[in-house]
Amino acid sequence: MASRPSFGMGIECITAFAPPNVVTNNMIAERLLEELGVVNKRLEDAGQPLIMGKATDLFRTSDRWIRRYIGFSERRFGAEDVSTNDLAYFAAKLLMDRVGIAADEIDGVIFRTVTPSYLASPPDAIVLQHRLGIPVLDGVLPRELICDDGSLACSSWVAGLRLVYGLISSGQARYVLLIGADKMSTLINWQDRTFACVLADAGTATLCAAVPVEDDWFDPSYFWSWADGSRADLITTPAGGTARPIQSEADLVEYLNCLSMNGPGVKDLFVPFMSKPAIQAALRKAKLSLDEIDLVTLHEANPAQLNGPIVKAWQGQGFQGSVISADGRFGNTTTASIPLALALHPELLEVGKRFGWFSFGGGPSASFAFGQIKHPIVVATDVEPEA
Amino acid sequence: MASRPSFGMGIECITAFAPPNVVTNNMIAERLLEELGVVNKRLEDAGQPLIMGKATDLFRTSDRWIRRYIGFSERRFGAEDVSTNDLAYFAAKLLMDRVGIAADEIDGVIFRTVTPSYLASPPDAIVLQHRLGIPVLDGVLPRELICDDGSLACSSWVAGLRLVYGLISSGQARYVLLIGADKMSTLINWQDRTFACVLADAGTATLCAAVPVEDDWFDPSYFWSWADGSRADLITTPAGGTARPIQSEADLVEYLNCLSMNGPGVKDLFVPFMSKPAIQAALRKAKLSLDEIDLVTLHEANPAQLNGPIVKAWQGQGFQGSVISADGRFGNTTTASIPLALALHPELLEVGKRFGWFSFGGGPSASFAFGQIKHPIVVATDVEPEA
Repeated sequence: MASRPSFGMGIECITAFAPPNVVTNNMIAERLLEELGVVNKRLEDAGQPLIMGKATDLFRTSDRWIRRYIGFSERRFGAEDVSTNDLAYFAAKLLMDRVGIAADEIDGVIFRTVTPSYLASPPDAIVLQHRLGIPVLDGVLPRELICDDGSLACSSWVAGLRLVYGLISSGQARYVLLIGADKMSTLINWQDRTFACVLADAGTATLCAAVPVEDDWFDPSYFWSWADGSRADLITTPAGGTARPIQSEADLVEYLNCLSMNGPGVKDLFVPFMSKPAIQAALRKAKLSLDEIDLVTLHEANPAQLNGPIVKAWQGQGFQGSVISADGRFGNTTTASIPLALALHPELLEVGKRFGWFSFGGGPSASFAFGQIKHPIVVATDVEPEA
Repeated sequence: MASRPSFGMGIECITAFAPPNVVTNNMIAERLLEELGVVNKRLEDAGQPLIMGKATDLFRTSDRWIRRYIGFSERRFGAEDVSTNDLAYFAAKLLMDRVGIAADEIDGVIFRTVTPSYLASPPDAIVLQHRLGIPVLDGVLPRELICDDGSLACSSWVAGLRLVYGLISSGQARYVLLIGADKMSTLINWQDRTFACVLADAGTATLCAAVPVEDDWFDPSYFWSWADGSRADLITTPAGGTARPIQSEADLVEYLNCLSMNGPGVKDLFVPFMSKPAIQAALRKAKLSLDEIDLVTLHEANPAQLNGPIVKAWQGQGFQGSVISADGRFGNTTTASIPLALALHPELLEVGKRFGWFSFGGGPSASFAFGQIKHPIVVATDVEPEA
């Protein structure tokens, strides 16, 4: 069978930006109670029965409860005038400064987000192209640039990495900027602690580069993906898409365009699934075993209920390496969570280490990647909290 | 340099679904005038000056005007309870029935749309996986399936085809279902004829399959992409993303979450750009010339102002082949427009023909693909109008 030149892919640099505005668990608890007051005032004005007793539970939480049952100590929210594109830009600008790549070397911008800056148009990847000064001319002819906006709920980033691997390994691009950025605070339903205690904002940039096949960090068999739409009801955005457009102010007041989660359902599905069948299917495909993996990063969905038990199960199956996470300090930043965790721990990203990156969530979906660090990687963060 | 098995990609089948509800140009004209009445009633009630004289132009059109200055004779709108996922499902179900592929042979669902059925979660690709009965188990282990939702405004479909080519040519997938589906009627601002005369709904499915490299319909050099965010203002959705969330009913009443276009600006950019520099850059990369292309399909954006002049310019540069379009009968269906046009003209899709697929629009963006039909293709449509 004929063949073509093929390439491997390495990662040159990962950067992360988190907004300086630290939001504590107590602030989340206060905001939920404030919302309860607003809702009850509205009900009172309408002469309807107030939310009371047990029904107020969805509005009640505490620092202690969040630390114990979710595992986040704090998180960041972007200011009102900060868009997802801004979060991405701050990370991507940092990347270009640190790694010293010229804008005209970038062949692609793959922008992963579930909170796009604009609906339908313009695409975030193209807005970012202009902000980064990626040129539009190559001599007198228009310069080629591959752009895309895409998502797969909480599995977006690894699923996007897989698409980038396809572009690079097939020789279509040499340097691709993979963005994972989300302003998840805009998707919080403040009448439901389930996601309010969890979601947060961050932007990341990852520079993926073509390398010779023998230096490939990855392999076509190192990616594994899964989806089961029969449980699409577990994590939903009730309104705002074509299945149920926003129709009135009432929809906004009820946060129908925000995220909703069946927390116990998510736990009941993903803890057993990730603990064994999913990881075993991915390892079998990759011809790897858990005792060969040095560094594990899971999408930081819920450290106490999900990430902790899953890692523990993997340790029972031979995993002896380190877990790289954002240590519960940045919340669940969806498309940003894995590269943010990596960028926060440059000391662990040593040449030779084998890693596994595991995303899972809405859909339900899962997207995994294994790899091995084969050259030094540049890492930088801009995550300092407000003084 | 080491190499790996690589694959070519062919297209097995293209199907298209258009909702049966035919919307004539006169119906568009009436709907705009009705909106003018609503707006003026609202202004009157608020004691504000009414929209009168020249200012009513944005609400005025006619069958003659639309045919002459835009080039659409009619279009289809999905019913209120029809989602983008439904449009995709009808096309994909037709494809699976006609081509005779079993659900468990599909390795990926790449869903391209600018009008997702749900915001953030669940992804359309995963909802569709379940509706099509694509299995979630492979024996006792979870079955791998690559899913993704993505878009690049009007260039979404060809940009998505390029990602699919990356997955297939790098050996990551054998059969991928590429969806292009949009319910653009949900993005119409009825206070502005610019897009109201243009946008429409349709769903398409395209089955992409791995073939030996020597039978490849495409080539890594046959794809070309471009973006220039400095003119991101040309086609925008003013509100609804994180750059400017929907804040109140007033935003909805003013259609701020709908599409807005600087029509003259789009024409001034794209007619010269597509006529020469873009096509020349793409041809140079592909090592092809226009006289070698038998079949051309452009994203059907605006037949009179854009598609017509661009094709005419190409004919002046040697293009002598056929233009495959939806003949102005289905409006601008964004991610669906190119596969819809192809599915409507099976008689032209002969083995041996060289084709060019050209998408362009919001961003601004462009995404092109050249190829050659190397085996017979199954084509089917479900586009019968309501009796």
